Amino acid sequence: MNVAHELAPARAQLEKLARPLGFVPTMGALHAGHMRLVEAARAQCKSVAVSLFVNPMQFGPQEDFERYPRDFEADNEKLAAAGVDLLFAPETATIYPPDFSTFVDVGKLGTRFEGAARPTHFRGVATVVAKLLHMLEPDVLYLGQKDAQQTAVLTRLVRDLNFTTRVEIVETVREPDGLALSSRNAYLTGPERAAAPTLYAALQTMLKEIQAGKSVEEAREAAVRVLSPQARLEYLNLVDASSFSRLQTLRPPAFLVGAARFGRTRLLDNLWIRT
Amino acid sequence: MNVAHELAPARAQLEKLARPLGFVPTMGALHAGHMRLVEAARAQCKSVAVSLFVNPMQFGPQEDFERYPRDFEADNEKLAAAGVDLLFAPETATIYPPDFSTFVDVGKLGTRFEGAARPTHFRGVATVVAKLLHMLEPDVLYLGQKDAQQTAVLTRLVRDLNFTTRVEIVETVREPDGLALSSRNAYLTGPERAAAPTLYAALQTMLKEIQAGKSVEEAREAAVRVLSPQARLEYLNLVDASSFSRLQTLRPPAFLVGAARFGRTRLLDNLWIRT
Repeated sequence: MNVAHELAPARAQLEKLARPLGFVPTMGALHAGHMRLVEAARAQCKSVAVSLFVNPMQFGPQEDFERYPRDFEADNEKLAAAGVDLLFAPETATIYPPDFSTFVDVGKLGTRFEGAARPTHFRGVATVVAKLLHMLEPDVLYLGQKDAQQTAVLTRLVRDLNFTTRVEIVETVREPDGLALSSRNAYLTGPERAAAPTLYAALQTMLKEIQAGKSVEEAREAAVRVLSPQARLEYLNLVDASSFSRLQTLRPPAFLVGAARFGRTRLLDNLWIRT
Repeated sequence: MNVAHELAPARAQLEKLARPLGFVPTMGALHAGHMRLVEAARAQCKSVAVSLFVNPMQFGPQEDFERYPRDFEADNEKLAAAGVDLLFAPETATIYPPDFSTFVDVGKLGTRFEGAARPTHFRGVATVVAKLLHMLEPDVLYLGQKDAQQTAVLTRLVRDLNFTTRVEIVETVREPDGLALSSRNAYLTGPERAAAPTLYAALQTMLKEIQAGKSVEEAREAAVRVLSPQARLEYLNLVDASSFSRLQTLRPPAFLVGAARFGRTRLLDNLWIRT
């Protein structure tokens, strides 16, 4: 595996790689969910590039940018073992030169749910991914379903701005008790970790109740009862998969999306209802 | 010359064209200034593509989108005669599908001067050019110096978002009396047309006075005296060529930029001070 910290050597390596090129953007702290994306890229493409960049632009001023988990050596080893061809791990100044000022905004979709909780988050995500797509020029962009609204934002970015890269969404990887893998799970204390799987359980309950003919509101009430009392629920809703506007009846493709805090740690999860 | 109104046939044609590909984005109503851009592309590149799209997103609600001059047949003939390989002339729905919502914003630079007079103008310009660069994937983007701030905005777009396209700025073409060519000159009445060259004369006076050692403010006062009394001056300033922030002393690369209304018609001009 080649490792490049600057753009010029990354592009020099990319020129040698067979196409199609699959690309997995990450912020590091890699877990089995990331590795599932790498596996999908490996299976479908001739070459695989991974970026590792903790993107300051997608963190709010009160958020966890500083304490976000970082372990470059471990990440490097995992990616090399998985047969990744290129690891692009730029410094912040390589991505954002001193007088950088441009951003990409996907509009209303980026203001809902996660965008309401984190007002500049999706602008930061869309901007850095637009840059990485230009830097690495991959054929396929691999995204994890766990961050459902992010997949919608980036699918829209690619469609609205006519990027030629294709988006592939890969299903969430879970712990045996159902907790969706996330780098932020590392923040959880023992009791928080024990309570965290109830977010997934709540989503499953909500889907089952909707499919049994209950109204979205009734299903939501049943779901809330499944949540651990330790969870502070932020939202739990049925939304259109593309716009993330709320649905009152099930009309796929849709997501059931949830966010809750367990102590200081904010976790997301979702169910993807494709048909 | 091939003419494509949809993306798929445009891309099919582009695949057959030799590289490097030069690209000239236009809103039609082509004059000798546009044709100078085409000539530069023709001289420096193996193939030339031109887009013709009156972009609604870069017009404000009270602006001249509806009455902007349109003459597809004449434009078509001029471009064919100039040896253009591909004319891409999309309908609005091809560029902006019904639920389009994404925009690109270059930040502060886009809020000054023209951006102050036309608050969403540069957002519209940056967004449509980002789309066209993805659609046509040119090697070189040709821009006219006449719209100086637009060249700064698009140079910054390309740099900040790491587009691989190179930007070439081509000098302003003028009438014998100095008036910069512009599609909007067609709006001028006889007396307005007679007064319009004083904008260029004012810029020249301002530069001469600065070079003679006068302060920017003194030079500006001398320049204003050269302007026709028919002109309603909007701004006349010395600015940094990259940020468009005002300069108190000449520090190239810089622009002297001016905007004035002649009747209902708002005209721009500038001098580019490269060294």
